[in-house]
Amino acid sequence: MKNLTMASIPQMIRENDIEALKEALNVLSGFEIADMISHKTAEDQELIFSVLSPKLAAETFIYLSLKTQKRFLNSLPTMQIADMLSAMPPDDRTALLQELPRIVVEEYLKLLPTQERDLALTLLGYPEGSVGRLMTTNYIAVRMDWTVEQVLDHIRAYGRSSETINEIYVVDDKDILIDDIKIKEFLFVPKGYKVSQIADKKFVALSTLDKADKAIETFKKYDRNALPVVNEDGVIQGIVTIDDILHLISEKNTANIQKVGGTEALDEPYMETPFFALMKKRAKWLVLLFVGEMFTATALGFFEEEIAKAVVLALFLPLIISSGGNAGSQSTTLIIRAVALGEVKLKDWWKIMKREILSGIFLGAILGVIGFARIITWSAFTTIYGEHWFLVALTISLALVGVVLWGSLIGSMLPLLLKRMRFDPAIASAPLVATLVDVTGIMIYFGIAMIVLKGSLL
Amino acid sequence: MKNLTMASIPQMIRENDIEALKEALNVLSGFEIADMISHKTAEDQELIFSVLSPKLAAETFIYLSLKTQKRFLNSLPTMQIADMLSAMPPDDRTALLQELPRIVVEEYLKLLPTQERDLALTLLGYPEGSVGRLMTTNYIAVRMDWTVEQVLDHIRAYGRSSETINEIYVVDDKDILIDDIKIKEFLFVPKGYKVSQIADKKFVALSTLDKADKAIETFKKYDRNALPVVNEDGVIQGIVTIDDILHLISEKNTANIQKVGGTEALDEPYMETPFFALMKKRAKWLVLLFVGEMFTATALGFFEEEIAKAVVLALFLPLIISSGGNAGSQSTTLIIRAVALGEVKLKDWWKIMKREILSGIFLGAILGVIGFARIITWSAFTTIYGEHWFLVALTISLALVGVVLWGSLIGSMLPLLLKRMRFDPAIASAPLVATLVDVTGIMIYFGIAMIVLKGSLL
Repeated sequence: MKNLTMASIPQMIRENDIEALKEALNVLSGFEIADMISHKTAEDQELIFSVLSPKLAAETFIYLSLKTQKRFLNSLPTMQIADMLSAMPPDDRTALLQELPRIVVEEYLKLLPTQERDLALTLLGYPEGSVGRLMTTNYIAVRMDWTVEQVLDHIRAYGRSSETINEIYVVDDKDILIDDIKIKEFLFVPKGYKVSQIADKKFVALSTLDKADKAIETFKKYDRNALPVVNEDGVIQGIVTIDDILHLISEKNTANIQKVGGTEALDEPYMETPFFALMKKRAKWLVLLFVGEMFTATALGFFEEEIAKAVVLALFLPLIISSGGNAGSQSTTLIIRAVALGEVKLKDWWKIMKREILSGIFLGAILGVIGFARIITWSAFTTIYGEHWFLVALTISLALVGVVLWGSLIGSMLPLLLKRMRFDPAIASAPLVATLVDVTGIMIYFGIAMIVLKGSLL
Repeated sequence: MKNLTMASIPQMIRENDIEALKEALNVLSGFEIADMISHKTAEDQELIFSVLSPKLAAETFIYLSLKTQKRFLNSLPTMQIADMLSAMPPDDRTALLQELPRIVVEEYLKLLPTQERDLALTLLGYPEGSVGRLMTTNYIAVRMDWTVEQVLDHIRAYGRSSETINEIYVVDDKDILIDDIKIKEFLFVPKGYKVSQIADKKFVALSTLDKADKAIETFKKYDRNALPVVNEDGVIQGIVTIDDILHLISEKNTANIQKVGGTEALDEPYMETPFFALMKKRAKWLVLLFVGEMFTATALGFFEEEIAKAVVLALFLPLIISSGGNAGSQSTTLIIRAVALGEVKLKDWWKIMKREILSGIFLGAILGVIGFARIITWSAFTTIYGEHWFLVALTISLALVGVVLWGSLIGSMLPLLLKRMRFDPAIASAPLVATLVDVTGIMIYFGIAMIVLKGSLL
């Protein structure tokens, strides 16, 4: 039925059949319309948008890409923008307005009714990334001395605009939050009961200034669908709903994965990020890593003579340093994630270090044995590794244990160190750790080579 | 108040004051108790656990680490385990049972009342990772011809055990799902209204065999707190609630981040993963990457003579190949995430390739210029790069453009290729791409060197 409707929309557009289009679009959700129009021409997009009700237009708008949103804001009639912004739930409106330039925001705010404008300004007044910016003010608050009947009447009168009526909030005469009660509690008791007879005065709340991460953590802990938000005096300011948390988690995770991969987190989807914005994000880290990696050339400069004497050492250089880098990537990724999820704390550093020392030796030994086997096998059939092939094999094996151990140590300790210094542990991306390990890995490799090969190759 | 209670618990344990302990624990949530006992001795943990009500014990149990859960299952009296499993919501029970060995599960199932046992078996019968495994069967279903009054009576009678009453499901006499109606709709109409007068017969549902990813996507799209699940005949089988989706997203993201870092995803938190399980997960990839990276030694073997003639080339080897690897890490990470979020599709490959070719040239040029500047600056003050320093600088710069371009291409195309071949794109981890780029990067570097330096150094 729905698919049928969607299939006939192109024809309606062609025939400019506004009435049919209006009817067809109204059975769809905002997400579905946004998804559909993303493939249409700008002209068709605007036609479709113009026949939506302000509420559906608002719902659709929030799912459009930022690029399309900005184009729409430029091309739509001012009155339609005003209607749409007024119809938007306060939390979605904040999410949109915070992406726009200040001057544009001021223009739009002028279009809103006084009450909505004041609300929008209040929400935008909270710091970026705070719970205040995620709040909606559409919730149901009741008083202790109300009867269940009064509560239900109140819900009937005001519940339609509330984002959820799953939880009802009990406040005192100063709007201080006293309790949160599930709606079902009200359905299980006689109508004459007072709220105070159901209330247990236990509740979980967020603070307007809490970081968004705190909100995510609290939702995970308490399995709620919405959480109330209070100011420093305990006065309820709004609620945060779990659907916004779901989107937030997804965004956060994208940013985290991008950081692990050694690029600054993108603000928009890959294909929609303008080329030079993408280049800026990538070049920043790439240049930093490049400058760091330049020290490998410096480090190798010290060993130029040794390389000239034993070119065979150069052959294994990438193999050895990349093994250290790979072990380091693994460690840093595991630790960054464990820190982010609160699975490990700073004070566990010694336990982690012990674990990584053991891991490094164990993993290094595995690679060392494989490397050793490879060199002696090749040497049985060729002369590529020269007469001192056994000592070369020994050098390579020992160097592998050394760099893998070193990589695991750096990879695990760096995120903890960054956290200790109040930086984001995720800065310790796989490529950054690999770069650090490359420079020191060269020292370890040639240091071992100079000891083992002294008197033979060197 | 809550903190006060928690602070006095150690004393209650010391004094073995069971009554006070019982009272104190009952104001806490399952999560809070689980969090608290994770720091206690095994003995204290069991004491605390033994005084909990079956329901609270069940709630607490699901938040314990798998290790602690298994110990508890071994040490608790059989009857207590039976009570706890019966009190567990069906979805949480499935999540627990699916982690245990089959033989243990069978033992426990025998302890359950017939009805619960059948239910548990049905849910475990769905494939791993399917929506069926996430379902709970505690939901409210009503009929079209019921009045609002009947619906509310039904909720009063059966709502307590329902995980959510935010949405009420309308089914026909064959239990085929016809509609989902928000509870608030029932509160806004007179009691004599029939369900059919409110119903719009539009609903969103999952199928029992859908993959969990589909569930996540659907929740994000439709901003629901719960979604009904139907079988192939449209018969309602249960519901999935958003709190489970929240935990699922978090787990999935941990796995994705770990894969990006070049390790197999851990099943348990870092510190709780047994040492050899962790080594197995890490060694697998590390050895694979090592074997791949061995080709760098082979590749360099072809250029042994060139290195002997121009040792200076060896000095820049790590710098050049790691730059290619870093650019590749960035590309693969960006593309893997964009694919996972559905932002790019396979058919966009050519658009992505064009973008990455441009990016590679642009980023490579930046690094090339920096590298060139570095060599000519150093050469102004030292003789480290010899008389042909200008040609060396040119070689390095051109090689940088080449490997960065190549890295960006491989990094962006590999995840798409893997997806095309129906593998998990996330296999193309940063270290894997770096390894691939290392081997080919050597060819590019020495290839350019042989052209530029022919007749001078080589």
